[in-house]
Amino acid sequence: MENGNSRSKDPILIAGGGIGGLATALMLSRSGHEVIVLEKAAQFAEIGAGLQLAPNATRVLTLLGVIDKIREVGVFPKKLRLKKALTDENLTHLDLGDGFIQRYGAPYVVMHRNDLLRILLEGCQEQPAAQLLTSKEIRTVDNDAQGVVATCADGTTYRGKAFIGADGLWSTTRKLLSDDVPVNSGYVSYRGTVPTESAASHAPLDEVVAWIGPGLHYVQYPLRSGNLYNQVAVFKSDQYLKGMENWGNSEELEEKLSVTCEHIRKAMPLLGRDHRWPMYDREPIDRWTLGNITLLGDAAHPMLQYLAQGACQAIEDAFAIGTAFNLEPGNVNKALTMYEQARIPRTARVQRNARLWGDMWHIDGAGRIMRDELFSKRDPDDHSHIEWLYGKRDPLFVGD
Amino acid sequence: MENGNSRSKDPILIAGGGIGGLATALMLSRSGHEVIVLEKAAQFAEIGAGLQLAPNATRVLTLLGVIDKIREVGVFPKKLRLKKALTDENLTHLDLGDGFIQRYGAPYVVMHRNDLLRILLEGCQEQPAAQLLTSKEIRTVDNDAQGVVATCADGTTYRGKAFIGADGLWSTTRKLLSDDVPVNSGYVSYRGTVPTESAASHAPLDEVVAWIGPGLHYVQYPLRSGNLYNQVAVFKSDQYLKGMENWGNSEELEEKLSVTCEHIRKAMPLLGRDHRWPMYDREPIDRWTLGNITLLGDAAHPMLQYLAQGACQAIEDAFAIGTAFNLEPGNVNKALTMYEQARIPRTARVQRNARLWGDMWHIDGAGRIMRDELFSKRDPDDHSHIEWLYGKRDPLFVGD
Repeated sequence: MENGNSRSKDPILIAGGGIGGLATALMLSRSGHEVIVLEKAAQFAEIGAGLQLAPNATRVLTLLGVIDKIREVGVFPKKLRLKKALTDENLTHLDLGDGFIQRYGAPYVVMHRNDLLRILLEGCQEQPAAQLLTSKEIRTVDNDAQGVVATCADGTTYRGKAFIGADGLWSTTRKLLSDDVPVNSGYVSYRGTVPTESAASHAPLDEVVAWIGPGLHYVQYPLRSGNLYNQVAVFKSDQYLKGMENWGNSEELEEKLSVTCEHIRKAMPLLGRDHRWPMYDREPIDRWTLGNITLLGDAAHPMLQYLAQGACQAIEDAFAIGTAFNLEPGNVNKALTMYEQARIPRTARVQRNARLWGDMWHIDGAGRIMRDELFSKRDPDDHSHIEWLYGKRDPLFVGD
Repeated sequence: MENGNSRSKDPILIAGGGIGGLATALMLSRSGHEVIVLEKAAQFAEIGAGLQLAPNATRVLTLLGVIDKIREVGVFPKKLRLKKALTDENLTHLDLGDGFIQRYGAPYVVMHRNDLLRILLEGCQEQPAAQLLTSKEIRTVDNDAQGVVATCADGTTYRGKAFIGADGLWSTTRKLLSDDVPVNSGYVSYRGTVPTESAASHAPLDEVVAWIGPGLHYVQYPLRSGNLYNQVAVFKSDQYLKGMENWGNSEELEEKLSVTCEHIRKAMPLLGRDHRWPMYDREPIDRWTLGNITLLGDAAHPMLQYLAQGACQAIEDAFAIGTAFNLEPGNVNKALTMYEQARIPRTARVQRNARLWGDMWHIDGAGRIMRDELFSKRDPDDHSHIEWLYGKRDPLFVGD
């Protein structure tokens, strides 16, 4: 069996070259740690469309030296706005302008997922300590006396001092730690981008707008300096609840969103229909680390998207695990334990709050009436609900 | 067949001598209308314990000349308070003091149901135009060329110009107008009074307090100048949902309320267990009147108790129907049509809002979190949610 990295001196192996894996590779390689990224696909690429980066993530991206490239392609919205999906009425908004940036030390950015991936990839490529390999599907990974050993589907073997499973929602690394399975929320999403000039109806180009309603929501925001326009439709599939095959298909999308306001209905024809995402998360687990193997990003804490924190939490993970390796350079297990103890409570809170936030968006009946009044009365300068999430933290992002 | 009222000149027949029936008899007889109250039971009496009278009702009771007697036995609470049932924390309160009384032109009163019934009965007994008959169970009622004719189970027959079915939730009069049936909410209540000195734990003696929680609530307030203490426990019966016989029994009461705060658990041993009330209402209907026969109170618009408006709306009905007879003295059907057109929209709104208010009290999950925040942030001087209900109205209480 070929030894894929016989010459490299105790590298850290990272399974998965998505946003979490590459951010981790960048963080570690910048600190002089040898890393090898093992990406299963033939190239580095993200599926999906737009991505939101709150200041808890953009502060890290600033420290990682990639914020200038992000500025070139990202959009800095002035407001996050919530509206009623059925009537188009305003509910509340969060001001993302200078006061917000000053408060949280970094901006709120929306950008294309592939743009962020490319920027992280370019950052890693500048680091001599980072090796970036594609078509490397992990088959097995084990702790042994020398550290960790991973074998790939192509027969290659990689040794290292640590293994970070950044292999996403359907993580195979996680199976070493838990026999849990992803939880299907019964919601499905459709996402896509269109050139802004062809968008039939779009929100103001300096806002992220979410229209929320019973069992559904719709999101719009600009990407790539406003030239590209991102749309997301999410709905609860009654067909899923009935156990029907092919649930959440585009006929059900049309039917469910037919009750929404004119703005949404006019925008929908240009919404991408070629792919749909059933929305999964998992329950938090108590341990991410087995010996010198650990989990990161969606592999560790997959979450529903309602707080737009999936990528942000993976980026926090990257910084935290890098900090832990820097603080405990001689003891991998101690570093990983420091990392998981810091991160599990916080990411579990984000997972729980993402579900809760989804419930709040999609509630009906008495809850909807109270939600609308609560949101409508909210002071736009009230940051009490996001301070825990966006506020400044120590380098390990400790605590919940 | 005996003609029970051969000598009386076109009286108005009122089936049912509860709060609605007697308030109507008092209102009509004071204006000089001959009335005959036909009460099925052997005596005039209410089952149940405490009763809340909001200013929309106490304004009417003032006009009916009975407020001084109510002052003698009623309690004028200073606050209506909502607390969390699981933790005893305050949520919000409504100030019922001088500002409230000035705003709504009358006080908020809590009293024993039987005390109010006695006061209304004494008021009627002072009116020569009112006949009050017991052991008169209506068997049939019909419109005919002379007006209305009602036959009783004891073989007596009564004629009149109009028939008002004030015969409660299970009204037989309503069957002339609708084949609907009461809607079981799956909630059950236990109610009772104890001498205040023996109450193990009670709220301040100048407050009405409702502890609200997921699928349950508990209410306490003083009666009879504070010497008697009223308690109500309400919970959603899981046994009812499972179709079990004997659902909502005292074992289920104990189990459901076992999660509540210490204050409630200490108070429960003295809560009456000898009777339980499954909680019913009905859907609003479009017509209450058939010829010269109409409905009033619970027979017309039975409602869940969450707004404490059952008696209050019956008292509004009494004033409205009296006003209608005074405005249209020569045309019974025109008077009854005026009455129903004025009252149906408003009572339907109260019925719907009572359900909604119950949903808000009993909500769990995301809705509970938002409810708690909304209520906690509420300005105690905010009257916007009760203005429509407590605010001054025309004498027919028109509109919704």
